[in-house]
Parts: sequence; C-alpha cells; structure tokens
Amino acid sequence: MATVEDILMIKGPDVIIADPTNTASEAAKMMAKANVGSVIIRVGNEVKGIFTERDLLVRVIAAGKDPVSTPIEEVMSSPIKSCRLGDDVKKCAKELTESHIRHLAVIEDGALIGLIGLRDVLVAELRSKDEKIHELETS
Amino acid sequence: MATVEDILMIKGPDVIIADPTNTASEAAKMMAKANVGSVIIRVGNEVKGIFTERDLLVRVIAAGKDPVSTPIEEVMSSPIKSCRLGDDVKKCAKELTESHIRHLAVIEDGALIGLIGLRDVLVAELRSKDEKIHELETS
Repeated sequence: MATVEDILMIKGPDVIIADPTNTASEAAKMMAKANVGSVIIRVGNEVKGIFTERDLLVRVIAAGKDPVSTPIEEVMSSPIKSCRLGDDVKKCAKELTESHIRHLAVIEDGALIGLIGLRDVLVAELRSKDEKIHELETS
Repeated sequence: MATVEDILMIKGPDVIIADPTNTASEAAKMMAKANVGSVIIRVGNEVKGIFTERDLLVRVIAAGKDPVSTPIEEVMSSPIKSCRLGDDVKKCAKELTESHIRHLAVIEDGALIGLIGLRDVLVAELRSKDEKIHELETS
C-alpha cells in the first residue's frame, strides 16, 4: 500500500504560504516564481484555505474581478480538504475525484506539513501497480 | 496497449476553440463556463496554439498584464505539441513529462480532433495496468 508519506518523500514538503490579505495578483506572482499551481492561506498555525490557478481563472478573471485589488480571502476555497501521512493514496484519489478537487493538505497534530495533488496521487498509484506486476511476474 | 483513441472514446472529443484576437479575459470566461483549463487557438483549420490556466497565471497575471486588453495570441503557447489517435499513451506520458507540459492536441490529416491532458494519460495507464494485473492473477 502506497501512502501519503511515500508521496511527500518524493516531492518534498514545500508549500507556498500566503496571507489572507495578499491579492490574487500577489499570489499569482508567488505561484509563478515557485512554478506551482496553488498557495495555502495560513494565519499563525491555522490553515484557512487554498487559492489555485483554477480559482484565479474562475473566481477572479472570469468573474470580472480585478486581480490587483482582490484579496485572496474573498476568492479562496475554504475550508481545504485534508489527509494524514499514513493515509492510503487510493483513499486520497477517491476523495479528490469525488470532491472534484485537485489538492489535499497534509495535516498532522493540527499542523500543515505538506500538500499533495491529483497528479502525485496518480503517479504513486502507477508506481504501486508496477511493483504489483513485477511481483506477480516473478513469483 | 492503451492508445490516444481509447482516451478520446471515454472523455469525448470536445475542445474549446478561440480566436487569436480573443482577450485573456474572454478566454477565461469560455474555460470557466465549460469547466476546463485550456482553449485551443485556431484560424480556419490551422491550430495556432493553446492558452491554459497556467498561461493565464504566469504570462498574464503574474506578468502584470491586463487580462481585459491582452489578446491570447500574445500569451499562448505556440506551436502546440500533438499526437495521433493510434499513439501509445506511454509515449504521450513521456512527451508530456519531458516537455513539462499538460496537454497534447490530437491531430489527424492536419485536422484537430481532440485534446488530451496529463490526467487522462495517467488514468488510461492505470486502467491498462489494472487489466495486466487481472490477467496475471487469473492466468
């Protein structure tokens, strides 16, 4: 069984953090610089939500809002769905697919320790199936 | 072997088409309405490029351009990479990963007949591996 921890071991724990008062334009600059598609909004230790490139598309630009003056707290997805280090990636894939979302925050003891995406989950599932095939072929 | 045609049979051939003179804001509205992350830019039968939610993030908003006055021909990815109906999804996965892109246009006889994304390719690979596992377990 592949777990969320296996995914974080490969992709690393890096998450881009923003304040609720950052504008959509500021968040876009942070994402572009880090070459990622989302930022987590956190105040102190509390995770408030997530702002993704899809939110920028749908809730800001397509909605006719000005990215330079729109704070992300107005357009973020909140609350963010989360998972734990020991969770099976299959369970995460189901959660992502059924909720039509692309990211899960990894939270342990109330603290954010990472972020996994649908792509990470699918790649981990592929790796797990390759191992299974190798096992069956050599047994 | 799973092919590009297998993917299109499941997701359908629908592609959102835009003109080079459409603005980033207009393209965003088209994408949001169709709940997709990209539009193909076509003039007559000629595919000119693709404009994705990542292009909106990086090349428009993070770059400080105004989405309401920026034509997508200035910020699209061009030329777009393409594949054919009979291509192996494994080959497509390699192309997408190595080029760090998320979409391939499906083109036959010079005509656009669909668009596949990294997620479609990974899901098709998973399905193909499940069949292989079933085959090995029951043989």
